[in-house]
Amino acid sequence: MIRFECDYTTGAHPKILEALVNTNGEACPGYGVDEHCEQARAMLRELCRAPDAGVHFLVGGTQANTTTIAAILRPHQGVLCAETGHINVHETGAIEATGHKVLGLPSTEGKITAQQIHDYCQAHHTDVAWEHMVQPGMVYLSQPTELGTVYTLAELEAINETCRRWRLPLFVDGARLACGLAASDVTLPDLARLCDVFYLGGTKAGLLFGEAVVIANPNLDHDFRYLIKQRGGMLAKGRLLGVQFEAFLTDGLFLEIGRQEVAQALRLRRAFEEKGWPLFMDSTTNQQFPILPNEAMEALGREYSFEVWAKVDERHTAVRFCTSWSTSDADVAALIASIQNL
Amino acid sequence: MIRFECDYTTGAHPKILEALVNTNGEACPGYGVDEHCEQARAMLRELCRAPDAGVHFLVGGTQANTTTIAAILRPHQGVLCAETGHINVHETGAIEATGHKVLGLPSTEGKITAQQIHDYCQAHHTDVAWEHMVQPGMVYLSQPTELGTVYTLAELEAINETCRRWRLPLFVDGARLACGLAASDVTLPDLARLCDVFYLGGTKAGLLFGEAVVIANPNLDHDFRYLIKQRGGMLAKGRLLGVQFEAFLTDGLFLEIGRQEVAQALRLRRAFEEKGWPLFMDSTTNQQFPILPNEAMEALGREYSFEVWAKVDERHTAVRFCTSWSTSDADVAALIASIQNL
Amino acid sequence: MIRFECDYTTGAHPKILEALVNTNGEACPGYGVDEHCEQARAMLRELCRAPDAGVHFLVGGTQANTTTIAAILRPHQGVLCAETGHINVHETGAIEATGHKVLGLPSTEGKITAQQIHDYCQAHHTDVAWEHMVQPGMVYLSQPTELGTVYTLAELEAINETCRRWRLPLFVDGARLACGLAASDVTLPDLARLCDVFYLGGTKAGLLFGEAVVIANPNLDHDFRYLIKQRGGMLAKGRLLGVQFEAFLTDGLFLEIGRQEVAQALRLRRAFEEKGWPLFMDSTTNQQFPILPNEAMEALGREYSFEVWAKVDERHTAVRFCTSWSTSDADVAALIASIQNL
Amino acid sequence: MIRFECDYTTGAHPKILEALVNTNGEACPGYGVDEHCEQARAMLRELCRAPDAGVHFLVGGTQANTTTIAAILRPHQGVLCAETGHINVHETGAIEATGHKVLGLPSTEGKITAQQIHDYCQAHHTDVAWEHMVQPGMVYLSQPTELGTVYTLAELEAINETCRRWRLPLFVDGARLACGLAASDVTLPDLARLCDVFYLGGTKAGLLFGEAVVIANPNLDHDFRYLIKQRGGMLAKGRLLGVQFEAFLTDGLFLEIGRQEVAQALRLRRAFEEKGWPLFMDSTTNQQFPILPNEAMEALGREYSFEVWAKVDERHTAVRFCTSWSTSDADVAALIASIQNL
Repeated sequence: MIRFECDYTTGAHPKILEALVNTNGEACPGYGVDEHCEQARAMLRELCRAPDAGVHFLVGGTQANTTTIAAILRPHQGVLCAETGHINVHETGAIEATGHKVLGLPSTEGKITAQQIHDYCQAHHTDVAWEHMVQPGMVYLSQPTELGTVYTLAELEAINETCRRWRLPLFVDGARLACGLAASDVTLPDLARLCDVFYLGGTKAGLLFGEAVVIANPNLDHDFRYLIKQRGGMLAKGRLLGVQFEAFLTDGLFLEIGRQEVAQALRLRRAFEEKGWPLFMDSTTNQQFPILPNEAMEALGREYSFEVWAKVDERHTAVRFCTSWSTSDADVAALIASIQNL
Repeated sequence: MIRFECDYTTGAHPKILEALVNTNGEACPGYGVDEHCEQARAMLRELCRAPDAGVHFLVGGTQANTTTIAAILRPHQGVLCAETGHINVHETGAIEATGHKVLGLPSTEGKITAQQIHDYCQAHHTDVAWEHMVQPGMVYLSQPTELGTVYTLAELEAINETCRRWRLPLFVDGARLACGLAASDVTLPDLARLCDVFYLGGTKAGLLFGEAVVIANPNLDHDFRYLIKQRGGMLAKGRLLGVQFEAFLTDGLFLEIGRQEVAQALRLRRAFEEKGWPLFMDSTTNQQFPILPNEAMEALGREYSFEVWAKVDERHTAVRFCTSWSTSDADVAALIASIQNL
Repeated sequence: MIRFECDYTTGAHPKILEALVNTNGEACPGYGVDEHCEQARAMLRELCRAPDAGVHFLVGGTQANTTTIAAILRPHQGVLCAETGHINVHETGAIEATGHKVLGLPSTEGKITAQQIHDYCQAHHTDVAWEHMVQPGMVYLSQPTELGTVYTLAELEAINETCRRWRLPLFVDGARLACGLAASDVTLPDLARLCDVFYLGGTKAGLLFGEAVVIANPNLDHDFRYLIKQRGGMLAKGRLLGVQFEAFLTDGLFLEIGRQEVAQALRLRRAFEEKGWPLFMDSTTNQQFPILPNEAMEALGREYSFEVWAKVDERHTAVRFCTSWSTSDADVAALIASIQNL
Repeated sequence: MIRFECDYTTGAHPKILEALVNTNGEACPGYGVDEHCEQARAMLRELCRAPDAGVHFLVGGTQANTTTIAAILRPHQGVLCAETGHINVHETGAIEATGHKVLGLPSTEGKITAQQIHDYCQAHHTDVAWEHMVQPGMVYLSQPTELGTVYTLAELEAINETCRRWRLPLFVDGARLACGLAASDVTLPDLARLCDVFYLGGTKAGLLFGEAVVIANPNLDHDFRYLIKQRGGMLAKGRLLGVQFEAFLTDGLFLEIGRQEVAQALRLRRAFEEKGWPLFMDSTTNQQFPILPNEAMEALGREYSFEVWAKVDERHTAVRFCTSWSTSDADVAALIASIQNL
């Protein structure tokens, strides 16, 4: 069984693992105030050209999302996001558990537009019964989205402008940002300039675990560590996050891993297209969503793991193949051969 | 600087690290349903002689506490615990953030008694205005306590009996349970028999991170994984927890580490006593709380890290020294020599 | 200005007010355990033919909804309801503020079907990643709906059956139930038999304020008063609710008021239809939603208050006219004359 | 049975009831934006000499407390209050249900001091592990306290100064403020000047229900109506609150009722003292706490209702007698005679 079901099937990239092993014996203070964390923070600030940004390392994406959103919103506010947004569908109501409604917007390929945000805010603030409805208090989007698509720089600029107009903090979930950087014209400095908060995900890009939250808006950084602790996100041996991100940010390893994940995925995409299988989603990143004849799905399922995404019709199903840091040329070649032989 | 400030200053015990390195390349399903997790679950159930217990692996203690408590309580209920309990003082209100009051009981050396629990419940349920007060809905205690003391088996039996009488689930925080097992007559099967839920902590006993939650009461196990996900505790590469606990539970490693931490701490305790320094707390585990003359505190602080605990009088301060899996004989010998030379 | 904007523009029905005045000087215990409350409870139980039901009086609908829903759901569960449901759109996220997601289902005329509930549950419980999604934990519907439509007895029976199959408590918001009883074949005993919880609203049927929550499922009644207090719903002078409901339930006053509100509304409906104005919604209760030419809307707006509901096209707007206990024949006749004269 | 058990046993003061009856037929907009509410707001602003203050009318005290506190605090913050504070003991954890810890301070006669507040903040902000503890985010106190005592102007001035120094909003629960105004040197303009938020309670001073929340700090008033709606406190027929407070604030009725309640209570106090019964609490307001021999308690209990407060020793019990707007000279004379005859 070769695994393409998700991008977190294996352990850490060798360079990450090596860094953990090499520093294992060091005695450090706990809770993320050690020198490795400080060094990784400095590196990320420099990569973002954001010398004053707050940087916080959290174990996982749901924690990063709930901690950030709970830190930003007042009790009567909700978070605007695509209906397909991770916080709206796949976090077991974690945002609602902090007291806030997720305000889902209909989405095309997982994305929302500046115009949608504007229209929602205008409708809310002109309704006579506005106080009876949840106030939009921030915007959440994912780069890349949960469906593998990416925002262009122009789209992000427009969203940023709308957010400023309505005074809505903008938060970008970067669980797969390494791939997003490889597949879009949006850079880390762009994100630091256009977002109030975003994160660079490690879990899906070769770390054992870890997400680096960058708070570009200093008002929102205030007391953030209290919230990390309250939400259960303050790792005792916080140095593990610092050590991993130091290695991840050194010599562009994060970019290299992102590029490699995307390259392997695009090889799969070409194989699907050459086979004549349509794509459920026009993804340019490490998740690919071919629509398979059900017999092909069954046949491939005997040798490869992947995720069933959506029933398209009685005879076809959309599935998801994911590549990761550890997807080898041999894995990809085997899958392509199997496809061609069907 | 030799570090005694806490029990999580260094990385993982060599056997834990080795297991992580050896399994790093394996491809597994995510979220804790891989074979390593299953194996570790089976081992822990057997050690507890609780074949039907639910076992869940979480990254840290605050997560384990909030997830368990939120799973058990109804909205109008609170959790009884010692005023010094970790959930009452050192988790930034994480329990209250789930909507529940922590009902602190005055405590002697970090412990509460069956009688206190009984009296509180009786007072609550006979008050005419009971509905105006938070209903006690469960009991939380720590073994060992935050002050290094331990519950005896007889004490736990009595608390269990009171809890059954008042239908209160009993939850034991075992963040330092490896030491608790070494320093008390309470065993894992005792805990599985007497508690509804408890956990065996790894973070403070040589793992990179990880707590194994054992749910002995099957009613409380129902849907628990939803709550883990909602509270941000479902690690994508869940196998990391399985792999570590497999190693931790093999050939009694967890017991060995607990015994070693305690043994080193008791060597320190003897040195304090021989020096004539009184103990702030009669701890028999890996945290020791000598009361130091302020000049001695200052002198030791130049070479050793430790935590300032409480001002005792103008000239004396209680401090905390912690030992961990990585506290060496040399570290302890050096500190003892420094004490003797003061 | 004659007011048709809502059904709570005036004070209390004369019989309700009289009861309040007559009992004003009595000294009673507080918090709803007085004799008037007990008497009103007994009357409602008898009207429902539910001798064991719990009955609780709350001040308003949002309180009734949040208290009931928070009492029923476990933390990882959400409430299924029509997308247009009051809890989903007009309570400022009150349900989310208790930690729970509202799971909106697409609705036809404000109603949901047994089939929709079944399909949602089946999809949830067969998804491989179910623990990553909010679990449906109960069903909420409104009788009549927010759009004036009603469930038939057959529809409610089918929903009840589906709820039992999936073990979902069924909760009916009866803020306008007096009208619902007048306009459907569903009776109080039917509701008590088919729902786990429902309420009979007083605020919109001639009381100063007050909703009578009937908990037919005794398991859900347990400790309910704690939740009322916690959510701020326990009125100190609780007797005000008992006194009002005593009068409301005496000699069928609640039925009479409901019938009268509906009769006046249907007179308006006929006038709209005769004028040739289409109806935005096929309402048979005290809210009517004609689609007006914009000039007609403006003209009527000079003499009558009503609510703008939805823009239909550039030249037409759906509006809402409400009748209440105090809508007089003269008010209705005046409005009808104005319509005819346009 | 003559009732002294609380100050909300009877209905409304005749002038309040008359106002309700007189305005019953008026048709007004809902939710507190009618002319009666506007007029009452203007009157209260003038009485407070606070022309820019926000004024909001809520049904009850628990609602006023939870809505205000939830509006002010960020998620990691708690509210400092006396251990005996109403929010800490008698609201079923309503504050915790909004996610916030109540930080109880030991209190003398229900009061806390500026020094206590200062010490708590200083200790918090100098602790090395501050982020692991709930941050004090505001101060709550009651005037008069739950034990009948009052803060002097000098005490309030000192607390205000400390709150400014630590940037803590100050919130005063005035559920019995009418009595507090009668029994202290603190006036409404003082409260508006020294507090960020306070309220003037109506329920315990002759209204059917209602508390007038005055938000002197305009930053805290922003979006407050959303929070009222979310917490279930936005009364549909909001005019009921406006009408009652108009009458309450006209010609000093609120002051008159407060003075009368206090005067009757002090007559009782003198009777207790003359009888030689010690006072459990040195109350100068409408709650009196004599310590009764148990036989006297039993004898009085046959004719008068009162609340058992605390067991003092095997033979003595502290009880609470309350006076209200409807406590007549005859009621008081009867009780005094009964005491003298014991």
